[in-house]
Formats: sequence, structure tokens, C-alpha cells
Amino acid sequence: MKILVSNDDGYQVRGVHELIGFLKEFGEVIAVCPDGPRSGQSMALTFENPLRMSECQPPFDGTKLYKVSGTPVDCVKLSLQTLFKGEKPDLIVAGINHGSNSAVNVLYSGTMGAVFEGCTIGVPSVGFSLTTHSKDADFSFCKKFVKEIIAHTLQNGLPEGVCLNVNIPDNCEPKGMMLTRSCRGHWTEEYKRYVDPNGRDFYWLTGHFINEEPEATDTDEWALNHDFVSVTPTSIYRDIHFDELPEWIIKNIGNKN
Amino acid sequence: MKILVSNDDGYQVRGVHELIGFLKEFGEVIAVCPDGPRSGQSMALTFENPLRMSECQPPFDGTKLYKVSGTPVDCVKLSLQTLFKGEKPDLIVAGINHGSNSAVNVLYSGTMGAVFEGCTIGVPSVGFSLTTHSKDADFSFCKKFVKEIIAHTLQNGLPEGVCLNVNIPDNCEPKGMMLTRSCRGHWTEEYKRYVDPNGRDFYWLTGHFINEEPEATDTDEWALNHDFVSVTPTSIYRDIHFDELPEWIIKNIGNKN
Repeated sequence: MKILVSNDDGYQVRGVHELIGFLKEFGEVIAVCPDGPRSGQSMALTFENPLRMSECQPPFDGTKLYKVSGTPVDCVKLSLQTLFKGEKPDLIVAGINHGSNSAVNVLYSGTMGAVFEGCTIGVPSVGFSLTTHSKDADFSFCKKFVKEIIAHTLQNGLPEGVCLNVNIPDNCEPKGMMLTRSCRGHWTEEYKRYVDPNGRDFYWLTGHFINEEPEATDTDEWALNHDFVSVTPTSIYRDIHFDELPEWIIKNIGNKN
Repeated sequence: MKILVSNDDGYQVRGVHELIGFLKEFGEVIAVCPDGPRSGQSMALTFENPLRMSECQPPFDGTKLYKVSGTPVDCVKLSLQTLFKGEKPDLIVAGINHGSNSAVNVLYSGTMGAVFEGCTIGVPSVGFSLTTHSKDADFSFCKKFVKEIIAHTLQNGLPEGVCLNVNIPDNCEPKGMMLTRSCRGHWTEEYKRYVDPNGRDFYWLTGHFINEEPEATDTDEWALNHDFVSVTPTSIYRDIHFDELPEWIIKNIGNKN
């Protein structure tokens, strides 16, 4: 079994080192991570600049670790060409992210960007996130959940176009795992305004999440708020069926061929 | 009507200037674009750096143009807070992109990132792309297609969670518009390897698209290859239904609450 690991927090963080440790008993682990923080990079690609890739000291004997001067998707794409020589790994795993990727955050997440990239090429792909941004977070209790999900995924696979977004509450004793859907919600007051010493404005991303369905008990937000590990099956295919469309589209555009 | 325009090629390119011109008869056009090229930025957000925003000379009287030192999603988010003061525009339009965003490219596109951002906040959102990267491309023939789609969208709206990805063949006389789905396919040989003067490798993104369903006549690729304007209804909601899932997930994870 060949397992490609990536993340968006960079090759030096604890979350990915712990993940490499949890996965090494399943096969050959090759981790390819950004050379620094790339949170919020979604499925971004590097077009305007060249990419560098170099091998680093792995956290465990028998594993491999590389850093790439790009995004998580760059890491996956470049490693498939250079390290896997066009063959596909058996599994792509991203994380463990320092911070939640629940709800709408999945769209912006670089961790999930790597997972979606795996999904586009038909490789079973799973992303793991812990709900704390602490760089010294304790990931040890995540091991049993990571191992259970990975063992099942390797044995049984995932449907085409489906990946898993796993969020783990920062709690040493989660009550168990729960299958969820992504909670509807949005971020508000997203920028803090500052004035620089020259009198010019600048803005920094911040804000807080508004849960638009706080009563729903089947969402990732509910699971995390009730100490469950949230497992959200997620799809990259964003086409919609034509029968969902309003009449004006069908009538005015339609299939003219 | 307030129309927010963005793109991923930057505030200075012809594609967005032409789009502003096509839209100004529909209402108040406020364009907020990256301060330079941001192709392939997907839904990336700027976390690690501050953002600058400043007003520029618009291409047409009565319109407004701003540049932001970030991604297309940053442009949409920051302008909603600073220019729209939390109110929503009636429409978000991105483009006209210099280059196709058909098939799998929709996932990486910064143009479509702005459109998806609009979709997450419930604003009818449409992206337009022309299938040439030429900076001097002739966009004039796009006008009638842009106007027809925008007129219908403003009058009739779009279903919740659905946006339009419109790709226009670089051909002064398209045969008409066609409702399509995103073609399945992938990119191959994505990186060119170079050696720098110090003997170190570097890589640059390149590659070519492999159409995995060349016989299908309902895809965006087919439409563009046959001189039709492709209109692909696209959704940002990536959840999948639990009944699509294999037994192991339901059995081993399930809803434990």
C-alpha cells in the first residue's frame, strides 16, 4: 500500500507528523507538504511561479517527507508526477489540520483541497482536522479514529467522487463517530480594519461563523458541539441535474445541438 | 440594481473592462478585482497577509473599479463588508476570463471562485470565460450572450446553490447557446522540469487536458468544440446523500446520537 499524505499547515507541524505515525503501519507513507502555512488555499494552483521540491528528515524511520513551495494541490499534483511517476497511490490522506474544517470552511480549506484533488483522480481520499489551532495540540487520542476510518477505507474503498471530511473535537474522550452533513452557515464581520503608520487602511481576515441551522442534529457542527467525531461524506462533482433548473434556463438556453 | 463584478486576471485586463461595459445598462456596476493575475486561485483566501483595497480609474463613466491585493474570493468578501456594508448585491458576475474554465478547470478557477463565493451567500452569480488566453482578444461578440444570460438571471433568478459557468468559444459567430454539464477529464504531464544555474531542479505548471468522454454530446467540451456557447449550471453544495454510501460507512460510523 502506498499512502500519499499532505496538509496545509506545512511540513514542520505536529498534526502531519502525528498523522504519518498513525498511518505507517498501513503501508509506505510518503508525505508531501507545503514549505510553510497554506491555510485557506482551497484548490489553488501555482501558475505564476515555479515550484521547488526537496526531501526533508521524516518524523519516523521508514517514512518519507518532502516539502514543496506551493499549495496543497500543488503538492499532490507534483508528487504524482515526480515521486509516483504517474501511478496512483492507494490512498490520499490530508491533515491532521490544526483547526476545524467543518461547515462552509470545507470550501476554503487547503487540507480539503488536497483531498478533493485526490478525489478528482479517483483515489480514495480522507481529510482529518482537529478543532483547535494550537500548535502544541494533543493529537494522540485521534489515533483510534484515524486508524478505524483508514482501515475501512483501504479495505472497502469509497464511491467514485466521494471523499471524507473528518473533524475531531478537541476533547480527549469523544463519544464516538457520527455520520454528518455539512452545516449551512456563513462567516460575518470578516475583516478587521487597521490604519498603517502612513495613514493608509489595511484589512485582516477574521470574523465568526453563524450557524444557520442550530437546531439540526445531523450536521458536522452539532456533532462537534456534542463531542462526536464528525465524518462528512463530501463530493467534488458540482454539476446539477437539469430537472432542478427553472424553466427560463431550459427554454432560453436548452440543448440546441 | 447593484452588480458586483470580479475576475482573476486582474483589474487592468480587457476581459473585465468589456464585461463592465456590457453590464452597465443593467444597473450600478462596482468592479472589485485582484491587483494582478490570480489565475488558478480557486476559492483561496488570504490569511497570512493583510489586504489593501484602493479605487482605480474605471473603464466607463458611471461605473466603479477597485483593486485588492488578494484573491477573487478576497475581493468579493472584502467588498461586501467595505463597499456594500453587509447588504448583498443583486448579482455577482465574474470574468470575462482570458481562457476557458470548462471541465475540471472549474475547480481551480479563480473566476469561478468568485462565483462560488457569491453562491454561498445566496446571490445569483454567473462566470464568463472566453477560450483564448490572448490579452488582446476580441470580446465584442460576447456581448449578446452576456446580455441575454444576465437579463434572464436578473429577471428570474437562479435556484438556491446554483450558479452558471458560461464558456464562450473564441469564434466571432457561435451557433448559439447550449446547456451543458461539466466534461469528465483530467490534466496530464502537468509539470515541466527545469534546472537552475545552480544545478537545482524547479518545476512549472503546464500539461494538457485529457477528455475522458470525447463521444458525449452534452458536455461543455463538446459545445465549445462545436462552436456553441456552453452554459453549465454548477452547484457549490458538495454534500452527498447517505443512501449513496457503501454499507461499511453506515454500519461503522452511522448516526450514533
